[in-house]
Amino acid sequence: MKKYLLSILITLLFMPSYLIAQDPEQKLKDKGIILTATSQPIGNYVNVIRVGNLLFLSGKGPNKPDGSIIIGKVGRDLTLEQGYEAARLVAINHISVLKAELGNLNKVKRIVKVLGMVNATDDFTNHPKVINGYSDFMVEIFGEKGKHARSAVGMNSLPSGIAVEVEVIVEVEN
Amino acid sequence: MKKYLLSILITLLFMPSYLIAQDPEQKLKDKGIILTATSQPIGNYVNVIRVGNLLFLSGKGPNKPDGSIIIGKVGRDLTLEQGYEAARLVAINHISVLKAELGNLNKVKRIVKVLGMVNATDDFTNHPKVINGYSDFMVEIFGEKGKHARSAVGMNSLPSGIAVEVEVIVEVEN
Amino acid sequence: MKKYLLSILITLLFMPSYLIAQDPEQKLKDKGIILTATSQPIGNYVNVIRVGNLLFLSGKGPNKPDGSIIIGKVGRDLTLEQGYEAARLVAINHISVLKAELGNLNKVKRIVKVLGMVNATDDFTNHPKVINGYSDFMVEIFGEKGKHARSAVGMNSLPSGIAVEVEVIVEVEN
Repeated sequence: MKKYLLSILITLLFMPSYLIAQDPEQKLKDKGIILTATSQPIGNYVNVIRVGNLLFLSGKGPNKPDGSIIIGKVGRDLTLEQGYEAARLVAINHISVLKAELGNLNKVKRIVKVLGMVNATDDFTNHPKVINGYSDFMVEIFGEKGKHARSAVGMNSLPSGIAVEVEVIVEVEN
Repeated sequence: MKKYLLSILITLLFMPSYLIAQDPEQKLKDKGIILTATSQPIGNYVNVIRVGNLLFLSGKGPNKPDGSIIIGKVGRDLTLEQGYEAARLVAINHISVLKAELGNLNKVKRIVKVLGMVNATDDFTNHPKVINGYSDFMVEIFGEKGKHARSAVGMNSLPSGIAVEVEVIVEVEN
Repeated sequence: MKKYLLSILITLLFMPSYLIAQDPEQKLKDKGIILTATSQPIGNYVNVIRVGNLLFLSGKGPNKPDGSIIIGKVGRDLTLEQGYEAARLVAINHISVLKAELGNLNKVKRIVKVLGMVNATDDFTNHPKVINGYSDFMVEIFGEKGKHARSAVGMNSLPSGIAVEVEVIVEVEN
C-alpha cells in the first residue's frame, strides 16, 4: 500500500504542470455558466484573428444571456457594483469566443493583455475596480493562466452606450 | 481544346490560395486611389515597427491628399457619413504606410487587429458605423485578408481635433 | 603606432552594432535616475506578461519616487509642460518594470508600440506634445532602440484621476 501511494506521489511530481492545472471547462460547469453562441459581427470584421500562437479578440460588451445589454455610464447611471458585473459579463462573452475558436478551453495557455474600457463620467476614478470584474472572472476560470497585463481607462462613449468594452490578446498551446 | 481547359481547371484547383487572391495593388488602381508619400512623424517615434512577421502601425488620422485634415466631433460637428469618410481616409493613410514599408502590398498576409477611436460626444452610440469606413476599405483592397479583429470606441479628444484615429497590427508574408 | 590605430579601426568596423549601441543602464546613471521598486498590482493582474520575445506591460501612471501621483486634466488643471513631465514619469515607471523583469536593460531590443492616453478636456488637441515626454525619455535611455510606433489620444477619465496612462509592448533579446 505504501509503495502504491509512493508511486502516485512520484508520478504527480514528474507530471507536466498543465495536467494538474485547473480545468477551465470544469470550472465553468461548477459555476453553472452556460456559454452562449457567439454571433459573428455585422460588418467587415471578425471576432478573433489568430497569428501564430496569439489570438487577437475583438472588443466585446456586456451582453446578457437573454440578449439584452448593460448600458449607461458608470458613476452616473450605474454603480461600481453594476460596472463590475458588466465587466464580468464581457469576460464570459470573450470565453464564449475562445470556446468557439478553440473547441476546448484547456488550449488557453495565457490571458496575455487586457484593455478594459469603462464608459465613465469625466470625474470617475475607480476604473480598476470595474475592470476587476473581468480580471477576477478570468482568474476564477483559468487560474494562474488567467493573470494578465492590463490597462483600465475611461471612455467618453461606447457603442450602443454599453457600460464596458474590453479587448484581449490570448496565447494558446501549439 | 477540352483537354487544355481541363488542365487549366486542375491547375487552379491545386494552386495555393494566395495566388488566386485579389491583388491589392490592382484594386487601388481600379479605384483610382493615389497613395501619397507618408511623412515621418515629428518626434521620437516612427510610422511602423516590425517584429517578426508583425507590423505595428502608429495611429493615423484622416489626412486628405491635399494635406488638410478632417476635424470635429462625430455626432456634433460631423454627420455619421462624414465620420465614415474620415475613417476611410485613415485606411488609405495606413495603406500608404504599408506600401512604403513593404514595397508591394501583396506582402500583406492579414490585417490583424484594429483599434478604431472616434472623436465623439459623450452620448454618441454609432462608433461601429464610423469605423466601418476603415474596415470596409481594408476588405475592398485586401479581400478576405482585410478582415480583422476590431474595437470601435469613443474618445474625449484627439490630436489636432481629428475626427478619427486608428491604430492597426498587420501580419506580413515571410 | 599607426598600425595599432588601424587595427582598432578595423575591429570597430566589424563589431556587431549592438556592442557599440548605447548602454541604457549607464544612461540612467548619467542622468541620476534611481529606479524605484515596482509594486505588484492590487488585483488579479500583473505588471508584465512575456510571450516569446515580446513583453506586454500593464498601463502605468505618473507615480513620483516619493509615492505621490500627478493627477488632473491636461489643458485645465495641468499645463502642457506638466503633462510632458507626467508622461516622462510613466516612462521611468515602465523602465522600472523592465529592469525588474529582465535584470539588465541591455536585453531590451526595441520599444515596439506605445499607447499614450492623456486625461484631457474635450477640446484639448496637443496629446502628441504630452506623450513626447514618454517617447523622448525612451530614446534618451535606449537610443535608436527606443523609437517606437505610437498613438497619443485623449481620455475622458483615468484611474485615481492620473494625468497620463501609457501601455507598451517591448521586444527583448533571446
